[in-house]
Parts: sequence; C-alpha cells; structure tokens
Amino acid sequence: MKKFLLSIALLPVLAQAQMLDTLTVKKIFNEALTSGQAYPNLRYLCKTIGPRLSGSANAQKAVEWGQALMTKYGFDTVYLQPVMVPHWVRGRAEKAYMVIDGKRFEVPVAALGGSIATPEKGIQAGIIEVKSLDDVKKLKPEEIKGKIIFYNGPMNPENINPFMSYGAAVGQRGRGAIEAAKLGAVAAIVRSMTTEIDNYPHTGAMRYDDAVAKIPAACISTLAAEQLSSALKTKAKIEFLLIQNCETLPDVPSYNVVGEIRGSLFPKEIITCGGHLDSWDLAEGAHDDGAGVVQSIEALRLIKSLGIKPKRTIRAVLFMNEENGLRGGVEYAEQANALKENHIAALETDEGGFSPRGFGIACKPEVFKKFEAMQPFWATFGLGEIHNYGGGADIGPLEKFFPNMPMVGLYPDAQRYFDVHHTALDVFELVNRRELHLGAASMAAMLYVISEQGM
Amino acid sequence: MKKFLLSIALLPVLAQAQMLDTLTVKKIFNEALTSGQAYPNLRYLCKTIGPRLSGSANAQKAVEWGQALMTKYGFDTVYLQPVMVPHWVRGRAEKAYMVIDGKRFEVPVAALGGSIATPEKGIQAGIIEVKSLDDVKKLKPEEIKGKIIFYNGPMNPENINPFMSYGAAVGQRGRGAIEAAKLGAVAAIVRSMTTEIDNYPHTGAMRYDDAVAKIPAACISTLAAEQLSSALKTKAKIEFLLIQNCETLPDVPSYNVVGEIRGSLFPKEIITCGGHLDSWDLAEGAHDDGAGVVQSIEALRLIKSLGIKPKRTIRAVLFMNEENGLRGGVEYAEQANALKENHIAALETDEGGFSPRGFGIACKPEVFKKFEAMQPFWATFGLGEIHNYGGGADIGPLEKFFPNMPMVGLYPDAQRYFDVHHTALDVFELVNRRELHLGAASMAAMLYVISEQGM
Repeated sequence: MKKFLLSIALLPVLAQAQMLDTLTVKKIFNEALTSGQAYPNLRYLCKTIGPRLSGSANAQKAVEWGQALMTKYGFDTVYLQPVMVPHWVRGRAEKAYMVIDGKRFEVPVAALGGSIATPEKGIQAGIIEVKSLDDVKKLKPEEIKGKIIFYNGPMNPENINPFMSYGAAVGQRGRGAIEAAKLGAVAAIVRSMTTEIDNYPHTGAMRYDDAVAKIPAACISTLAAEQLSSALKTKAKIEFLLIQNCETLPDVPSYNVVGEIRGSLFPKEIITCGGHLDSWDLAEGAHDDGAGVVQSIEALRLIKSLGIKPKRTIRAVLFMNEENGLRGGVEYAEQANALKENHIAALETDEGGFSPRGFGIACKPEVFKKFEAMQPFWATFGLGEIHNYGGGADIGPLEKFFPNMPMVGLYPDAQRYFDVHHTALDVFELVNRRELHLGAASMAAMLYVISEQGM
Repeated sequence: MKKFLLSIALLPVLAQAQMLDTLTVKKIFNEALTSGQAYPNLRYLCKTIGPRLSGSANAQKAVEWGQALMTKYGFDTVYLQPVMVPHWVRGRAEKAYMVIDGKRFEVPVAALGGSIATPEKGIQAGIIEVKSLDDVKKLKPEEIKGKIIFYNGPMNPENINPFMSYGAAVGQRGRGAIEAAKLGAVAAIVRSMTTEIDNYPHTGAMRYDDAVAKIPAACISTLAAEQLSSALKTKAKIEFLLIQNCETLPDVPSYNVVGEIRGSLFPKEIITCGGHLDSWDLAEGAHDDGAGVVQSIEALRLIKSLGIKPKRTIRAVLFMNEENGLRGGVEYAEQANALKENHIAALETDEGGFSPRGFGIACKPEVFKKFEAMQPFWATFGLGEIHNYGGGADIGPLEKFFPNMPMVGLYPDAQRYFDVHHTALDVFELVNRRELHLGAASMAAMLYVISEQGM
C-alpha cells in the first residue's frame, strides 16, 4: 500500500503501478469468472465428504482432500500442521417436547456443541423464559432451582449487517448454561441464532466453567421458541422435556492444511489467507466455511495459473476446529511465533460464499488510511465497502505475536447467512457459483496487492 | 438534493437536515426489516396468482390484486390506467430435437415471446451456428436459404455486472429472427441468456420487421446449446426439428395500477416509483418483476405507516406489459404529458429482489453531482454504489417529455439474476426476505429524500 502515500512527484509512477495492478486484478477476476474451480471443489467437499466436525472421520478426509488438492495445483509447499482437537459427538438425534397440561408436543432441538447428555430418560422440568444473560442474573436462585432456563432473546433484525445482531445475541448460546447453572437450573434451551422464523435448530458452540455445575444445553428452532413463549403466556402448566445423549470424547490428533506460493523477492514476508475446514455435524458446511476453504485455495490457484510471481509469500491455510475450540487458529499462531516467521498481513473469509462487497480491516488507524486510499481501486471491482473493523476468528490469535499486522476479513453480502448457519440447510445448492468465484477473486486480488506493495 | 450544493455558511443547516434525513431513513429501514410486508405480498402474487403474461387472465387478477392492496393500505389515490396490450399465447409446450444422422435427441426449448408457430409437424432443417447478429450478416444467402440459424453467442462471464453481458448478447434474441429471415432462413434458435450452463430455456421477447418474412424463433437451454455446438463440430449430419404452436391474438384491454401519496407542500411535483406487474408465462415472475411490484407498493406503505408526510407527491406504478411491448410504460408517459403533470424524478426496480447496493442514475452530469455528493449518506445504508447510468425500461418513455428528469434504478446485487431470469426457476422460494425488504427500504429512502429536497 506504501505507494499510495508517496509524494506528488511520484504520481506518474504511482499511476503506472496502479494501472498495472488494475490490469492484473482484472485478469484475476476474469480467470475466476470464466474458469473458476472453487465451485466444483466446494461440491466435492460438501457432497462427497460432507459434514466434518472436528475429530470426525470426515474431518480427516477433508484434511487429506485439502492437502491433495493443493499438491495437485502445484503450490510450492504443501504441508500438514498437527493440532489436537476436541472430539464431541452428538450421538442419537435429540428429542424434545413442550409438555402442556401433561400433553407432549415435539419441538425441533439440537444439542449445542460441547454439551453434556441428559439422563437416558431426559430431563423434564418447569421452564423460565428470559431474553438475555442479564435477565437470568436478575432472577433469584429459588425461582430457578430445578428449572430449565429458556433463553429467548431474538437476533435484532434492524441491523443491516446481521453479524452485528449475531454478536449481540450469541452470548446466550455460549454462556447460557453457565449462568443458568450458577443459580441451580437443570438445563438451558436457547433460541436459534437467526432473524428468520423457521423450524430448523441452528446449533453452535457452548462453554462450561469448571467452577460451575455442567447442565445440558440445546438450541430450539425459532418457530418452536415463539410457540413455547406463547404457551408460557397462558395459564396452562408448561414443562419441557429434553433428551440428548451427546458426549465429549478424548481429544484426537488433527491438522491445519497449509499451502504456499513463495515470494519471488521477499519470501520471508508472509501473507496468510484462510477459512476453516471443520463444519458442524448437522450441515454440509457449504457457506460455513467450505466457501472460505475453497476460496482460499482458489485465491492461490488464480495467482499461480496466471503466472503471477508474488513478491511476498502467500499462504492458504485450511484451519481445523474453528467451530468448537479454535485450536487450529491458536496452533497456527503459536507455530508462526515459534518458527520466528515474519507475518505482514492475514486475510480470512468466514462469513459465507456470497457476493463480496469489500473488506473489513482490523488495524491501527494510520495503517487503515493506506487501505482507505485504495477504496476507489477496490470499488472498481465491486469491493468498495472498506471498514476499519473485521478480521476473523482463525487469524485472531496471530495478533498476540504480530500486534501491528492488519487482519483483513472478506466482507460478503451476508443477508442470507443466518437462514442456513449451523443448520441442515447449509448445503452446496445454496451457494451461487458467480458469487463464490467473485469472493475468491477478491481474496486473490487483496493477496496480490499486498504482496506487491508490502505493508 | 439542493441542500448539498449550498454555500459553506449554511453547513450547520445542512448537517441538521442530513441528521434528520438519517434518522428518518433509519426508521424506514427498521420498519422494513421488522414489519415488512413485501415478502408476504410477493408470496401471494407468485403463489396464488402465478405467471401473468400480458393479456392473460392472471394478468387481470394481478391488476385487481394490486389495486385492492394499495386501497387497503389507504394510499390517497388508487386508480387504474387503461392500456391495450399484446396477447401472445404459447399454446402447447414446444418440442425440439437435434437430429443426428437421423436419430432424434430431444432438447429443452421455449418459443420466444411474439414468435409465430411452426407448421403442425414442425420445421426440420440443417442448422448453421453463429455467434452474433454480425456473424449472420457475413453469411451468403445461398448458405442460409432453407436452414435454421443457431445463435450461440454466450453472455460474457467476465463482466462483474451481468446486465452488461445481457445487454451485449440479447440482440440475438430480439433481432435474430429478422436477420436470419432476411437471408432466407426458416427458423431461429437462440442460446438462452445466462452465464450458467443449465437445462432451462430462458425465454424473452423477440421482434419481427414488417418488411421481412416472419420465421419461428425459440430459445434453447445453454446445456443443449453446448451439446448442439459440439455435435456440429463432428462429421455427423445434423438437422434440427422445432415444433411450436404459439400465436398472437388480438390486443386486449389491460391496466397500469397507480397509487399515490399526495405531497403535503408541493403536491403537483410527482416522483414515480415502479416495477412491472406482468411476467413471462413460464415463471412466477418472483424476481422479474414481482419483487419490483411489491417493493414499490411497500415503499409507499413504509412512508405512510411511519406517519411521514412527504412534501412532494410519491406514486407507485405497477406497469403492465414490460416484457413484450412496454405498452404500460409508454402509456404512463403519454398520460403524464397529456395531463400536463410535473414529474421531477422516477425510480424503477426491475433487476431482481436481491440485496441493494446503490442506485444507477441516468441524468445530466451536473444533476449527478448532487446525487454523488450524497454518496456517504447512502453508503451508511449499504447503498454506496452510485453510478451515472441506469434508470429502467418502464420509466424510460418519460424521458421524451421530461428530458431533464433523473431516472433512477435501484441497483441490486444481481449475480443470481440470470440463473432464473425468464425461466420456470423464477419462483418465490428463491427470493430472500431480508434482501427484498432492504430493497423496499432503499426505494422508500430515495423517494423520501427526493420528496424532501426536490430536484
């Protein structure tokens, strides 16, 4: 980006450089839109491999697939980075019922990732509805003891960016069991994270606190949540019955998959791009984050296939275990530090394979100015939304060791994301080819520009 | 927009006005995202009424529905504007075959709108592949006479905006039969207008020239077009058999549906927004252009339901017959002129109900500067892509009478549009609720800003 801060005297040079950049980036987009391979690669990952929760046999297949694909593409180096990952299994499908005046009505639920099982016959108890973690803290232990807490705080539909609403609501899912158990609850039921009213449970990670009793936690579809909430407003006697038999097995060995194209001038300066290879077990993980995986691989393939020799090293990382542990992201950062690597920027895509609209860049304001100065350039490619926040979960741990490094997140149009997120609906068929390939081209373009200009 | 050209001395006033605008527009978005009615309205239009080609019974049902809905919403004036429209009917489903060395292989085709029928037993002839209208002009009449011309020019996948590629390729569909017939061809087969390789015929309008013989014209799916093109490269003897029995019946009376909210200060200054009520017969017309219809109605409903009193008159127009005649658009302009109405701006949405990204504004450069000055304001709502080209087909005829008036087109993210355009895939289920409602809010916001500020 440095070129864009040079003096006026160098403007012709700058203009020429920018012209070259524009032509090269246009070539990248053309290649993606005419001969992109991300889409057929995603089909394989979703349809032939399928769901790939950390520790599962499918996750291992995905590792082998990613390694073989990047090797086939002839990247300069392709290797596996070992990491131990959690191994949580859902077991038999969950069952749950609203019990209204003694009559059972089945409702769609799914155990939250990391939850313990209920006893074999389930847990049946009275239910208390709250809208947030703060709400539950206001209740008295005698009200809660022996009850099931029902977290029914909806995602705020008013934010145009649905990730803002997700961030504000998802605490119920992550910490709901802890806060409920502190006051003596026997289970936690959490409204699914979506702005839509649908009948799919949207699973996701939850946590326990070693100092607090562990209670089972499950998500419930938003439609059932609305029904349950309505029932609770009547005079009927409402109980809830939850039966699930998930469990956490011992950690198992797994891998991040790394492929790189070495820089032609500054090979020690590393630019990472990546998405996460693991997915929830309910889903094919097409948008979350098969898209990011195939786009990261494709970004390098586009650059290589066009004969571009990046000045700096660009690296695609297929992170393992973003969904329920982030072990891959943490290990990648630890290894970068242990090996004394010189990381200059990182780029993540984990907001779905939708039309890209720009980049979210977490960095210091003075660094952001460089990115902002290029906004007109990015706007040419439909990437004009350049924000000074973003990054991503898997590249996040790099910040500890490279605190001044920009963390870039591809910013797609995510209006449809929470329709499918962490559900059985997150399938290949709901990914659009052109949208996916535009995202891959956008990542390749950002990698190319940073690799040319440095940070 | 005038405020934004005032002198520096008035900046505090400007800032205050813009703050008010921002708060009001935010309210419009909130209402659309929490209580929007465009999506259920679109469900009714698509699922209960369905396909509604001009002149059909369903088109009349759609007229009655639109009038009743705007009346129910309590708009100040709701009326029908009579217009005679073409009445073309497809008749029995088309059949077509590649005939390779005498063996028939059925391929998916659809008559183009306006085409004549073939004889009952069809037309079977040798086939000549071309890539464009220019290609066919280079051929000699003796090569073409008695043959079927196969227009196989693909939509260029390299344009990020697929409408640019559509515009460049669609001439084959519109004029293909004319140019082929001039040289003695007996039928025209046109590759479907999509960048995808699929097995759906994408129909659309074609024209005849009274000075040239009329020959039947049909579109063929892109997959079959690729297969046919491959077959033509072999040594096999290839013929093509087309059977279709469509016909053009006498014109029938129909209507534009108009609803308006009268301006509180300048009621004679009119701002039109609209989409087209007719659709192709193969489709539910969900994206094309049921979305534009329900968004136009919703734009007025949002403003009314929030108690906003627009200074100028805003008018939703459900245009009839955009697909195969544009009679509604022409009549609307003629009436505006005949009634000496004062139109100050028009806004159309006919590029699908996808996430909005901005506005395309056809106007003089000096007027565009006013819109451009508001780019940061629009960017706040994800509408930062403000281009000096756009408008729309139905509002286009207004230019004849109001040549200085800005013609605004809502600019959605149309990457998925040509997957479904003019096919049986253009169904309600492929419209996303939030995306549709964001578009409606964007239109309401533009109407509001223009009605406050004037042009």
